[in-house]
Amino acid sequence: MINWIEGGITAPKGFRASGVHAGVKSSNSDKKDLALIVSDCEAAAAAVYTRNRVKAAPIYVTMAHLEDGAATAVVVNSGNANACAPGGAEHASAMCASAAKATGLKASDFIVASTGVIGQELNIAAIEAAMPACAAALSATGSDAAATAIMTTDTKKKELAVEFTVGGKTCRIGAISKGSGMIHPNMGTTLSFVTTDCAITPALLHEALTACVNVSLNRVSIDGDTSTNDMCCVLANGMAENALIDWKNEDYDAFCAALRQLLIEVARSIAADGEGASRLITSHVVGARSEETAERLAKEIICSSLVKAAMFGADANWGRVLCAMGYSKAPFRPEFVDVSFRSCAGEIAVCAAGAGLPFDEALAKQILSQDEIIIEVNVHEGEHACTCWGCDLTYDYVKINGDYRT
Amino acid sequence: MINWIEGGITAPKGFRASGVHAGVKSSNSDKKDLALIVSDCEAAAAAVYTRNRVKAAPIYVTMAHLEDGAATAVVVNSGNANACAPGGAEHASAMCASAAKATGLKASDFIVASTGVIGQELNIAAIEAAMPACAAALSATGSDAAATAIMTTDTKKKELAVEFTVGGKTCRIGAISKGSGMIHPNMGTTLSFVTTDCAITPALLHEALTACVNVSLNRVSIDGDTSTNDMCCVLANGMAENALIDWKNEDYDAFCAALRQLLIEVARSIAADGEGASRLITSHVVGARSEETAERLAKEIICSSLVKAAMFGADANWGRVLCAMGYSKAPFRPEFVDVSFRSCAGEIAVCAAGAGLPFDEALAKQILSQDEIIIEVNVHEGEHACTCWGCDLTYDYVKINGDYRT
Repeated sequence: MINWIEGGITAPKGFRASGVHAGVKSSNSDKKDLALIVSDCEAAAAAVYTRNRVKAAPIYVTMAHLEDGAATAVVVNSGNANACAPGGAEHASAMCASAAKATGLKASDFIVASTGVIGQELNIAAIEAAMPACAAALSATGSDAAATAIMTTDTKKKELAVEFTVGGKTCRIGAISKGSGMIHPNMGTTLSFVTTDCAITPALLHEALTACVNVSLNRVSIDGDTSTNDMCCVLANGMAENALIDWKNEDYDAFCAALRQLLIEVARSIAADGEGASRLITSHVVGARSEETAERLAKEIICSSLVKAAMFGADANWGRVLCAMGYSKAPFRPEFVDVSFRSCAGEIAVCAAGAGLPFDEALAKQILSQDEIIIEVNVHEGEHACTCWGCDLTYDYVKINGDYRT
Repeated sequence: MINWIEGGITAPKGFRASGVHAGVKSSNSDKKDLALIVSDCEAAAAAVYTRNRVKAAPIYVTMAHLEDGAATAVVVNSGNANACAPGGAEHASAMCASAAKATGLKASDFIVASTGVIGQELNIAAIEAAMPACAAALSATGSDAAATAIMTTDTKKKELAVEFTVGGKTCRIGAISKGSGMIHPNMGTTLSFVTTDCAITPALLHEALTACVNVSLNRVSIDGDTSTNDMCCVLANGMAENALIDWKNEDYDAFCAALRQLLIEVARSIAADGEGASRLITSHVVGARSEETAERLAKEIICSSLVKAAMFGADANWGRVLCAMGYSKAPFRPEFVDVSFRSCAGEIAVCAAGAGLPFDEALAKQILSQDEIIIEVNVHEGEHACTCWGCDLTYDYVKINGDYRT
C-alpha cells in the first residue's frame, strides 16, 4: 500500500532543505539557484551517475565522498554545470567546504551537484557568499524552495513523496528532480535527489536505486542528449525506526515498490515538462521476446524526431513508429506488428500485422490532441513489455535551445 | 584529375532519363513524381540498402533483380514510400512490369524505388497510366526532370556529374539524389541514383560503391531517423570504352576517386538541404586513435539536437559539442580536446585541453551566422580523422514534420 503525500524531500523524518538566490544564474534576477538538503543524522547513501565520458567535476567529487556508502547532506547549484570549466574540481570541493562550514558538517558528508551551462567558470564567490543564508534557511518544510532552486529550463517544479509500511513502521520517500533538456535514457537521468527515513544498508540502497532507476529515469528521453551532470542520489537516514533492511526480504520489496513508483512519477514529470514540450508521450511495447527488446523498441519510438514532431502536429503518422522500431537494432518481425494511439479521448488502431488500417482521421486528431498520448505497440512474439516516456518536438524546443546561454 | 560537368545522370554516354507527373503526390498539383533512367545497353549494377529492419517493398524487389549484378534501368516514384503498405510487394513488381512494357525491356532489368509517406497504399493505377508518357519522354537531357521527380520535402534538386580519365579514355559519373528528412548515417542514405559509362565488373562496382558510400552518404545525418527506403545504386554501362576494370589497378583507383568525390558532394548537398535547415554543419574530427573513433565522434556531434539548435541560433555553445562526444561511446580523453568554429567569416578557438577559452562573442556570432559552419575538433591522440555533414535544427523542421501527411 503506497500513498502519495505532500512535503517532497522533507516529508521523510529528519530531513531539512532550503533554496536561496546566490546569483549563479544571473545577478540581475532573484531566481533561486542554490539548495541544501540535510539529514539530522548520518544516512546510508547511494547514487547513479551519467555514463557520459565527459563528466562534470561535482560527479567525481561526489563519487569520492560516497565511497563509504554514507552521506549526510546535499549541496547543489543551478545556472552553471561546472563541466569542462576552468577550476572545476577546485570549485566543486569548495562548494562542499563552504556548505560544511555553514552547517557544521564535514565536507566529505556532502553530495555535490551542479546543473546549467557547460564550459563556463562557476561563480564560486557568489555561492560562498550565499551559503550561510542557505544554511540558516534550512527547514522541515524547505522542499519547495530546494525544488525551485534546482530548476533550469523547467517550467514546473518536480517534487513528490510517498508513504508506505515496512515491518509495521510507516516510512516515507521524497524526491525532487529537474529536467528538462539534455535528457536521454541509459544513465541516471538528470539531477534527482531522494530522501527516505527508511532504515536500509548502503549496499541494498544502491541495489534498489539502480533497479528502480533502470525502469524509470532511464526510460525517459527528451532530446537524445545524455548530460555531463546527471545524477540520482538517495539518502536513507533510518529515522522511521523500521528494522534495518539488510537482506532481500519483504521489507526490501516494499521499499523497492515505493521507490520504483516514486521514480516512475518523477520520470513522467520530467518527460511531460521536456524543453518546449506540449505533450507527454508514453510508448508502451508489449508482446516482445525479451524485456531488452521491448525497451529498445519503446525507447527508439520516443527518441525519433519524426515521431515527436508528428505528435506535436497531432498527426497519426504511425509509419514513423515502425520506421523507428526498424532502426532500433532490436529483433522483431515487422509483419507481426500492431500499432494504436490512445489518450483520454479514446483509442484508435492504425496498423495491424505491419500494414496500415483505414482509420477515422478526425478521431485520430482528437485522440492525439490531448496532453498525454500513449503509443501502444504489440510485436506478437512473446510476453515481455516496457514503457518509456518522452515528449513532442516543438517550435519552443528550438527556441529554447537556439540561444540557451543568453 | 576530376572535372565537374553538367548533365547529371545523363552526362555519361548512353543514358536517358525522364520525369513526369503521375499523380502519386497529389492529383491536385502537377508536380513530377515518376522518373525513369535507362541505359542503352545492359549495365553492371550495384546497390547498397537501408539497414532499417523495416524495409520498403521496392528494396526487396530490387535486391532480387540485382542478384545477377546487372540492370538496365531504374523506375522510381515520389509521394509514397510503398513501405508497410497494403499490396506493397505486388505494387513494386507492377511498377517494374509497367516500366518494362513501356520501354521494351524486361521487368527484371529494373531497379525500383519509392519515397514518401509510409503506410499508405501506393496509387499504382496512376503510375501505370503515366508510364507510357514517362517512357516517351526519355531523353539524353532528361536528368533534370528525373531529379525533380524524386524530390519530396527537398527544396533543391540534387544533380551532379564528374569527368575523369581511365586508361586514356574519358569517363563520366552522374548522380541524382533526394533528401531531406528521415536521414541518418549507418546505411546507404536516402535515394541516390548513379550512372557511369565507365566499364567495370559488377563485383568491383559493388566494392567501390560500398567504400565510397561509407565515407560520404553514410556520414550525413539530418534527424537521426534511418529511413525504410534508403538506397544508393549505380549503373555502369561501359560505353566510355575504357579497358574493363576487373582488378584493383590504377584505373580502379581513378574510378573510386571520382565516385567518392561525387558522392561526397551529393552528401553535402543532402545535408545542406536537410528539412528546415538554414545551415550546412560540417564536423571535422582530427587526431583520433582510429578512423572509427573519429567517425563516431564526428557523427555524434552532427546528430546532437542541442548542437544543431545552437547552430541555428549561431550560439557558440561548444559545451554541447563535448557533451555529444562524451556519449558517443568512442574512447577519447576529454582533457585533451580542442574545439574551434570556422566559416567563411573566420575561425575562433573556444575550448583548449577540455576547458573553455575566453573568446569574442561578437566574432563567434558572425562566424556562426554563415551558410556553412565547420566544427573543428582535435582529440590529440593519434593521426586519424573523419568528416561528417549535417544541418541545424530549426522551427521549419518542426513545421514540416508536424503535419507531413496533409
